Amino acid sequence: GVLPLSRRPPAWGRAARQPPGLPLALARAFSNNKILVELDESSGVATMKFKSPPVNSLSLDFLTEFCISLEKLENNRACRGVILTSAIPKIFSSGLDITEMCGKSTEHYAEFWRAVQEMWLRVYGCNMVMIAAVNGSSPAGGCLIALSCDYRIMVDNPKFSIGLNETQLGIVAPFWFKDTFVNVVGQRIAERSLQLGALHPAPEALKLGVVDELVPEEKLQERAAAVMAQWLALPDHARQITKSMMRKTVLDRLISHREEDIQHFISFTSKESIQKSLRMYMEMLRKKSG
Amino acid sequence: GVLPLSRRPPAWGRAARQPPGLPLALARAFSNNKILVELDESSGVATMKFKSPPVNSLSLDFLTEFCISLEKLENNRACRGVILTSAIPKIFSSGLDITEMCGKSTEHYAEFWRAVQEMWLRVYGCNMVMIAAVNGSSPAGGCLIALSCDYRIMVDNPKFSIGLNETQLGIVAPFWFKDTFVNVVGQRIAERSLQLGALHPAPEALKLGVVDELVPEEKLQERAAAVMAQWLALPDHARQITKSMMRKTVLDRLISHREEDIQHFISFTSKESIQKSLRMYMEMLRKKSG
Amino acid sequence: GVLPLSRRPPAWGRAARQPPGLPLALARAFSNNKILVELDESSGVATMKFKSPPVNSLSLDFLTEFCISLEKLENNRACRGVILTSAIPKIFSSGLDITEMCGKSTEHYAEFWRAVQEMWLRVYGCNMVMIAAVNGSSPAGGCLIALSCDYRIMVDNPKFSIGLNETQLGIVAPFWFKDTFVNVVGQRIAERSLQLGALHPAPEALKLGVVDELVPEEKLQERAAAVMAQWLALPDHARQITKSMMRKTVLDRLISHREEDIQHFISFTSKESIQKSLRMYMEMLRKKSG
Repeated sequence: GVLPLSRRPPAWGRAARQPPGLPLALARAFSNNKILVELDESSGVATMKFKSPPVNSLSLDFLTEFCISLEKLENNRACRGVILTSAIPKIFSSGLDITEMCGKSTEHYAEFWRAVQEMWLRVYGCNMVMIAAVNGSSPAGGCLIALSCDYRIMVDNPKFSIGLNETQLGIVAPFWFKDTFVNVVGQRIAERSLQLGALHPAPEALKLGVVDELVPEEKLQERAAAVMAQWLALPDHARQITKSMMRKTVLDRLISHREEDIQHFISFTSKESIQKSLRMYMEMLRKKSG
Repeated sequence: GVLPLSRRPPAWGRAARQPPGLPLALARAFSNNKILVELDESSGVATMKFKSPPVNSLSLDFLTEFCISLEKLENNRACRGVILTSAIPKIFSSGLDITEMCGKSTEHYAEFWRAVQEMWLRVYGCNMVMIAAVNGSSPAGGCLIALSCDYRIMVDNPKFSIGLNETQLGIVAPFWFKDTFVNVVGQRIAERSLQLGALHPAPEALKLGVVDELVPEEKLQERAAAVMAQWLALPDHARQITKSMMRKTVLDRLISHREEDIQHFISFTSKESIQKSLRMYMEMLRKKSG
Repeated sequence: GVLPLSRRPPAWGRAARQPPGLPLALARAFSNNKILVELDESSGVATMKFKSPPVNSLSLDFLTEFCISLEKLENNRACRGVILTSAIPKIFSSGLDITEMCGKSTEHYAEFWRAVQEMWLRVYGCNMVMIAAVNGSSPAGGCLIALSCDYRIMVDNPKFSIGLNETQLGIVAPFWFKDTFVNVVGQRIAERSLQLGALHPAPEALKLGVVDELVPEEKLQERAAAVMAQWLALPDHARQITKSMMRKTVLDRLISHREEDIQHFISFTSKESIQKSLRMYMEMLRKKSG
């Protein structure tokens, strides 16, 4: 089950080509499981639609599929930009799948956390233009995905909220979630928002800079395409080097502490007090949805 | 006269318990000298009211009492949050007591500066939720105390101002004052404000992000309590680790350069030109108040 | 043709005095070539007016004259602040002179780039108060000059724009352009603006913090003088140390990588693809103006 992906995001080295052994038909079937990928070759824009009911939680399977799908797009010269959005009403992504963090083996925790890291390294370091079209709530890991894109457009609905709400579950956002957040909203807002585990309704998220603009739901895809066109008007090479220069420090911090970060996650998650918090939280979610 | 306190703020290690040798009655008498401490055990919120006439200047005695009072609260499991405010009308704190920096011995300067460092390390690294209820003007070191809290509420009165105005006295805010300020308002605003030694009237302070909100004077304590309740709704442990992660870089910078910083303060303060500036400033204050 | 200037800006060492060998008359004649320098000894304020038609592009000659003029002002005790502005209608500066980067020798590229570095080190590290009175468009290197000042006032005309638009030419702003920009507008805005190579019309530049205020064209010089007076009200020594403390990290990053940065510029600029981009851009400019 280890992710069959190179450790460093291709953004930082030479882009890898499609691995020769993987039959395309199989790849397609696999890719169509939890994430719908549509590539418009005329515009060079792909849309990755999260479709993992009920709430697009980031399970190990989801993350694996996400990374493979993104790598395929990176290796496809026809693709220059990706729009991330949800196929499930009212939710963009609910964040990390807590069942992956509860009552599992140390090996499982390590594998899961490596996949979370891989996802972030690939999105934050992606050579392609990444736009988040946030069409529902986006807590924790869902928010991280949006924060890691180049631009965030959110549906103008105060019922949808976004934020790194880890502290509300009694857990702590890792340093690279924090670094990504600080790069978006600055230190003061990040300090408060992270400590409070705040979920910001869309209008507040705009005011704080968590998202870049709000649009009515029916205009979201159109607006995402328009913004993407604006970014794709620039020469790829110069834009990519510029992006890599801006994000290198924060990416390198995780790359050089990756194994430590996994060990830290394992020892933290294995604590009985944390397991108890997570079980209570899942119980609460179950009652809510039941 | 060396501060009988551990060098590193307890926030970063295991919390120390009440030292066994200190009789509580004495401690109380001492603590009630320049700072009124009231702990509401039902809410877990303490209020530290500065009451050192005429202007709550940060003398060596004040700083020593401040650190001991804060340490006691940290060691009291019933206390989870602290509101800092003033018992003196129109002034929160006037900042460092200039008489401690004028015409004294090298040893005195060292002791005084170590106490200033200790105060900042304890407030900025505090495990408890720290809220500044700024009910008066707050220049220089007074501003630093507010900046070091988790949240700043100021009375909505344009006659009250706040800022790091050191340059106006011909002196320079130390690097850790600067780091704290940059973490609150960002680099551009900090550059301008520090170079100009700006004292921002409350409405401007809000606009620049120096304080987080303004309220009418009669609502200040009520609002501080409400904000505190919001912060205390979070589990302490996750919030504390998050806070420590956010502030560690800046705290470590002083911790690892503490003696150098003391030597720097001594050599700067001992200069005749600086002594002259400070004497002129004190003379001006004397005429103003007389 | 190597710049007869010390490598480190005087801001960071002892101020150099007027070199004894240079006859003042000659210096004056030279200085009056592309930049008009007027010093008002009563206020201590100099104005440097760029007058290098058609668009104040930063040629090697311009940069050399700029650095010599600025160094002379630094060595003149009567001068405490400098206002940078343009004597040419509608343009502040068009940025680096592309003819210096096209079809020239490696030695020429090295000399040119060293002069660009020198200009930035001198402005960003300048002990004097530097105010940009931006009375026209200010792309790329022109924007860098403004960003390197202490304060930016721009004419309130949406036809004038400012920004680091390098990516639009297929090139990449160096890391120290980026560092300077991030220090002014923060990471999120810099990421977007740099990747898009955005030229912000004056009102947008104000909103994003690229400039500090807008004024009607006829009020620009008056307002610049008023702001300068406010900055000069502070004691030089304390203000200078404060400025140096704020900017040291970013200045040191270039100082310690200066030769690498030159080599990087040479190898990037020498690429045939980049040469082609630049020739196309020059062609476009020629058609536009013809």
